[in-house]
Amino acid sequence: MYRLALIGFGNVGQGLAQILRDRGDDLAERFGGPLRLVAVCDLLKGVVYAPEGLNPITLLEAVEQTGNLKGLPGVQKDWDALTTIRESDADVIVELSYTDLKTGEPARTHIEAALESGKHVVTTNKGPIALYYPQLAEKARANGVEIGAEGTVMSGTPALGLGLDYLAGAGVQKIQGILNGTTNYILTQMEAGASYSDALEEAQERGYAEADPTGDVEGHDAAGKVVILANLLMGAALTMNDVDCTGITSLTLADIQQAQAAGERWKLIGTVEKSGDSVKASVRPTRIPAAHPLASVGGATNAITFTTDLLGEVTLIGPGAGRIETGYALIVDLLAIHRKSGKKRT
Amino acid sequence: MYRLALIGFGNVGQGLAQILRDRGDDLAERFGGPLRLVAVCDLLKGVVYAPEGLNPITLLEAVEQTGNLKGLPGVQKDWDALTTIRESDADVIVELSYTDLKTGEPARTHIEAALESGKHVVTTNKGPIALYYPQLAEKARANGVEIGAEGTVMSGTPALGLGLDYLAGAGVQKIQGILNGTTNYILTQMEAGASYSDALEEAQERGYAEADPTGDVEGHDAAGKVVILANLLMGAALTMNDVDCTGITSLTLADIQQAQAAGERWKLIGTVEKSGDSVKASVRPTRIPAAHPLASVGGATNAITFTTDLLGEVTLIGPGAGRIETGYALIVDLLAIHRKSGKKRT
Repeated sequence: MYRLALIGFGNVGQGLAQILRDRGDDLAERFGGPLRLVAVCDLLKGVVYAPEGLNPITLLEAVEQTGNLKGLPGVQKDWDALTTIRESDADVIVELSYTDLKTGEPARTHIEAALESGKHVVTTNKGPIALYYPQLAEKARANGVEIGAEGTVMSGTPALGLGLDYLAGAGVQKIQGILNGTTNYILTQMEAGASYSDALEEAQERGYAEADPTGDVEGHDAAGKVVILANLLMGAALTMNDVDCTGITSLTLADIQQAQAAGERWKLIGTVEKSGDSVKASVRPTRIPAAHPLASVGGATNAITFTTDLLGEVTLIGPGAGRIETGYALIVDLLAIHRKSGKKRT
Repeated sequence: MYRLALIGFGNVGQGLAQILRDRGDDLAERFGGPLRLVAVCDLLKGVVYAPEGLNPITLLEAVEQTGNLKGLPGVQKDWDALTTIRESDADVIVELSYTDLKTGEPARTHIEAALESGKHVVTTNKGPIALYYPQLAEKARANGVEIGAEGTVMSGTPALGLGLDYLAGAGVQKIQGILNGTTNYILTQMEAGASYSDALEEAQERGYAEADPTGDVEGHDAAGKVVILANLLMGAALTMNDVDCTGITSLTLADIQQAQAAGERWKLIGTVEKSGDSVKASVRPTRIPAAHPLASVGGATNAITFTTDLLGEVTLIGPGAGRIETGYALIVDLLAIHRKSGKKRT
């Protein structure tokens, strides 16, 4: 059995609760026991703590009906996030507070507190992982616990897991990916003839792009993911400033059509590449030949190509966002922890 | 440390030896100790056994220079495969004898003997895995050892690992794949204007197709892989006869061009699909819309799309054959055994 405390109960937290509600029995079989939610702490929705376990159905209904967790049975506490992390009887902290790619806070502090309390951490939060992974991984090792971050790259599409468990032994020399669904959606719409501004507007209407789309269209979101790939899969210690980053805002409809006429497609490509003993990273619009697997990836889908010594190119294509899809990334991390920590326990 | 005995030293066995020669240090780090070759037994090349370990450089040079293993230092034995499996001081048997999709022999007998001797088995041999996996897996469980078969589907591209470790929890409903490189190469050449017979001839010249291409072009090779996917990833117990199988021999250049004109591509698609409590399997030429990830997969490359409840479609594209690529599949299996059996050991 695993006892989970959720820090943050927005989209991803609720996605995880939906998965536990709908697939709890199947997961209990895979984990050799239930995944039990013992605490949920949300800045706006309140805190609820029940060592015997919270019912995901009740949690989801409460949020749907009242917008908060205040009327719920369970021990109500005046706990803040740090107290929940330290005092709750959880063995895994699920860090889902908001993403800040400049400071990594408050998630960094949450994760450090969890690791120092001897609790595993799983998170979909790019901020602390892009900015502080080497330090956080060291702290996890020192405390004998694990840190999982699958959902920071391609939601539940297991880009990190594939790289770490399956391709690392083949000698990964280069990783290239379409790592931002918003910009890929905009570029796909432009290929169908839309102007950049019309395509952006449509992305905003569909909820793919935020009101301030800067983080997506200037490539910062993809740059964060590139840093994560470099640091987790190539053992680098890059920071956001190490990424040579160009967004898609200067691409015109004429550029798009020129590429199409030449049998190519513009994609915003994040790249990490070994170069001697160092690792170089970039995000930039790139013309991809139509025959390459990355060229076929349209709309909000994401994809990643690993270039390896032994296998040549291996490409993984799947969703890069979504409430359930990102919630599933936490299950992927928990399964990896289960495989590893089973080792230590028995 | 793992002690390996190779049964068969053809292309794949030599590919594995090359990997151990070129990447031994890196692999020793990943496995927490060396992968040591203690025995090699080949029907034609001879048998060599050295409990202290055989040097892969020496093995490869011997085969290159003399075509056999007879002049090699190490204890020469009159062992046959079964004696090597039972008497050698190995903890993993690498089964690489020839593939027979009708009987699964002699590999089935080899694998059973290995499991009964308490030795793990890794194999790239489709015959015994397609025909007898449920029984072999049961025997492995009964003897407390593992059986790995990653290389039976897409060589070292980890289709089975991705499905088992990462996607099973997402609820896999359907698996579709381009699982035979020869036929995909022929179809790609036909799209470029070649007739079926010219394309086949070129595939034979390049070594993709055998002199008797029946197994590939009639879909039997893909059908074997479909059975493996059904039985390993969906817990089914299908046999070759359960696969509704049609090859590519009746596709004409006109069919190919008609599809192209409609923005589609003919691919030989293997499908496994849940249907109530049962699993249905087929291999047949299928028209795929150009926008689908499988459509972009040309030449001898393979690909597989998992349709899941939680992630929608996830596609993996990579090599499906090759000496080093298939050799690497054995490393993938050994890494999985290492993750699992570490659990039991410590």
